[in-house]
Amino acid sequence: MSPTRERLVVIGGDAAGMSAASQARRMRGPDELEIVAFERGHFSSYSACGIPYWVGGEVAGRDELIARTPEEHRERSIDLRMRTEVTELDVEGGRVRSRALDTGTEAWTSYDKLVIATGARPVRPRIPGIDAPGVHGVQTLDDGQALLDSLASTQGRRAVVVGAGYIGVEMAEALIRRGYEVTVVNRGPEPMSTLDPDMGRLVHESMTGLAITMVDDAEVTKILTGDDGRARAVATTSDEYPADVVVLGIGVRPETSLARSAGLPLGEHGGLLTDLAMRVRGHENIWAGGDCVEVLDLVSGRERHIALGTHANKHGQVIGTNAGGGYATFPGVVGTAVSKVCDLEIARTGLREKDARRAGLQYVSATIESTSRAGYYPGAAPMTVKMIAERRTGRLLGVQIVGREGAAKRVDIAAVALTAGMTVDQMTALDLGYAPPFSPVWDPILVAARKSSAAVRRG
Amino acid sequence: MSPTRERLVVIGGDAAGMSAASQARRMRGPDELEIVAFERGHFSSYSACGIPYWVGGEVAGRDELIARTPEEHRERSIDLRMRTEVTELDVEGGRVRSRALDTGTEAWTSYDKLVIATGARPVRPRIPGIDAPGVHGVQTLDDGQALLDSLASTQGRRAVVVGAGYIGVEMAEALIRRGYEVTVVNRGPEPMSTLDPDMGRLVHESMTGLAITMVDDAEVTKILTGDDGRARAVATTSDEYPADVVVLGIGVRPETSLARSAGLPLGEHGGLLTDLAMRVRGHENIWAGGDCVEVLDLVSGRERHIALGTHANKHGQVIGTNAGGGYATFPGVVGTAVSKVCDLEIARTGLREKDARRAGLQYVSATIESTSRAGYYPGAAPMTVKMIAERRTGRLLGVQIVGREGAAKRVDIAAVALTAGMTVDQMTALDLGYAPPFSPVWDPILVAARKSSAAVRRG
Repeated sequence: MSPTRERLVVIGGDAAGMSAASQARRMRGPDELEIVAFERGHFSSYSACGIPYWVGGEVAGRDELIARTPEEHRERSIDLRMRTEVTELDVEGGRVRSRALDTGTEAWTSYDKLVIATGARPVRPRIPGIDAPGVHGVQTLDDGQALLDSLASTQGRRAVVVGAGYIGVEMAEALIRRGYEVTVVNRGPEPMSTLDPDMGRLVHESMTGLAITMVDDAEVTKILTGDDGRARAVATTSDEYPADVVVLGIGVRPETSLARSAGLPLGEHGGLLTDLAMRVRGHENIWAGGDCVEVLDLVSGRERHIALGTHANKHGQVIGTNAGGGYATFPGVVGTAVSKVCDLEIARTGLREKDARRAGLQYVSATIESTSRAGYYPGAAPMTVKMIAERRTGRLLGVQIVGREGAAKRVDIAAVALTAGMTVDQMTALDLGYAPPFSPVWDPILVAARKSSAAVRRG
Repeated sequence: MSPTRERLVVIGGDAAGMSAASQARRMRGPDELEIVAFERGHFSSYSACGIPYWVGGEVAGRDELIARTPEEHRERSIDLRMRTEVTELDVEGGRVRSRALDTGTEAWTSYDKLVIATGARPVRPRIPGIDAPGVHGVQTLDDGQALLDSLASTQGRRAVVVGAGYIGVEMAEALIRRGYEVTVVNRGPEPMSTLDPDMGRLVHESMTGLAITMVDDAEVTKILTGDDGRARAVATTSDEYPADVVVLGIGVRPETSLARSAGLPLGEHGGLLTDLAMRVRGHENIWAGGDCVEVLDLVSGRERHIALGTHANKHGQVIGTNAGGGYATFPGVVGTAVSKVCDLEIARTGLREKDARRAGLQYVSATIESTSRAGYYPGAAPMTVKMIAERRTGRLLGVQIVGREGAAKRVDIAAVALTAGMTVDQMTALDLGYAPPFSPVWDPILVAARKSSAAVRRG
């Protein structure tokens, strides 16, 4: 062991934490850097985003979602301690206290460098019955397994999904695939509140078309239970929906109780605040990434909380490089997200109308309908694209897409244009790939850019 | 009629010409602007790019490829004269001489403003037998109909496609679909010379896997004919390939004989040279667009000739706006193209290695393999991405993709990044859409950007 050997401690063994650990290991060998990672769950480095597809039966087994097992990390000289929770962070002393969940053993571990990757926790409304058997979150592999066990042990075929964001709509698909009658109960006026309501309306209509019962503007007040104590219905302010299983897909909040207790800086959404190198602000040797941090929205110039595996992986990569003595930054996000419900594809990037207003931006918007391929080519599927541009300057502010096959990933074009600060007028000239099986001669994004550009000119 | 009514004459009734005419009509009513258009063929405003899919049977009929008929143009007060060829352009006199092909009637028509949209003509090697029955180009709807008639009247099932560019490989697919044994004879070392040879090799392998016989490095010397005068085989310098039908897919050249005779400026590829408003250089009242012009390649800074419907439509839009008294520009291209052969998808944008060298650029390149979706998600298909970046600066220079479903349109991400002048390091942070059905957690473009960025750092 080198006398200058440092110890890097990682709290959280999923995407951000283990990406950071792996990248730090690539930068520095075990002689230079000892890496200790703590994970309170049973699994490391897995794709939480894949849980709906595992529940839906499209992914055969849980193990397929695991990118790297604890053993594989240990083979790379990362001392990953599973089922071990960090219960206290002593920033001044440069140490963390951990507790092995199965034995109760506690210990302090000192660190030279620390990575906080504690993830997010699902929102669970404080209503009667929320903890009853048959009510499931879908945040972790353990949650997914519990839901699958619950489905297997239940006779009935009625499912209520609470929440109509990404997790909610993906779980609706999963339960449809499992043969359930699905009701989605949603607090907002339309599903997918990450879209403007006019685009959310299209999602509502398509989901109804998939035989999903959509209940909007509904606040869940109670989970009703049967004589066996198990959930049997979901009650809202106005009605009751029978349920053999209830899935909570309401969203998540940053898991930062440890950081909060340690006095680390948190933002208005409860996430850790970092600099561009993913260092916790004011702390030279502490980094944070993944679902527990806030990220800079490059379009609005404000911090947001976005729980998404692709960001967590990028954060981990940046953190590992920096913790390993290199240099990398995470400049921020533009807010891109894609999802699907059966053959319905949903995508968004940048600002919604209300985000633009909140950011003090005046804007124009344009909505167009087009198709994924040349109209005459088999499989050409309809697609609605909404584009929002700043008034006067014409700078692109956001794009939302609802369509079928080939719709969602077109949002990437807008994501790059947003990053580059392009105007919608500049976008009308983009040299996008064209051939009849792939696009109409004017790609839907170009059609939207033309209409937005005309709206900007009209003022 | 207004005393100041002007006359706009359009030469060529396909994508560029009729887009220009339609847009000019939107800008100015018939009282202000008379529009006369000449088209020597039988059809107006059709998708030549769709011909392979019509021949292949995926598109039911010819009429589906026609975006707007001559009658529909006339209803919009565009005096479209079909089967009428412009035989002379008198720039000084501001007039064109036309000849009605069916009657032989000739006439002079004066213009205040002129649009040249004469398109391209297919390359036909001057070899014996090239004009024999059974040898077909696929440039126009008339060509497509002739080929379909030829296929219907032929007993044999062996087809030879000469050329392995976009038209060649798309026609190979079409003939496979028609139940033909297909041989593709290609002058270059690999098919798809718009890719680097290492990527072309992947296309070669995939096409061989589709039971297409690939003959590379072969110069066609002769079309052998039978006793009935019809093509029966294609002879190359080294071998002979039996053929019941021969399809020429060798590429096209700008059709600029009229412009050349009139002394208009042509570039090194034989295309008309225009300014950014698509005005023919040095001529205030003449515009040109579509397959007959050269376009600025924004990456190399040089003029290129690219025959592609999407450019033609953009040119027409810009020309019509300007000819109608408005203002619009076509800034140039980055060289994006997508294609497919059965389930093989091929895409490229920007510079190949040899383009970079020719432009005096030093570069690094990186090639990665990834998948279209999360590896565990059904239908995840392999994809190879090659990325080329400028040495030292890391500026993106080009991307090539060969893969399966979901591969080709990812090139749009690179097309926008090229337009914005991004570095591959900047691209590693792009906020691209991620969900397991749409992408691995690191999109293949991000993986390629990371590897390229590392190559730039190594120098």
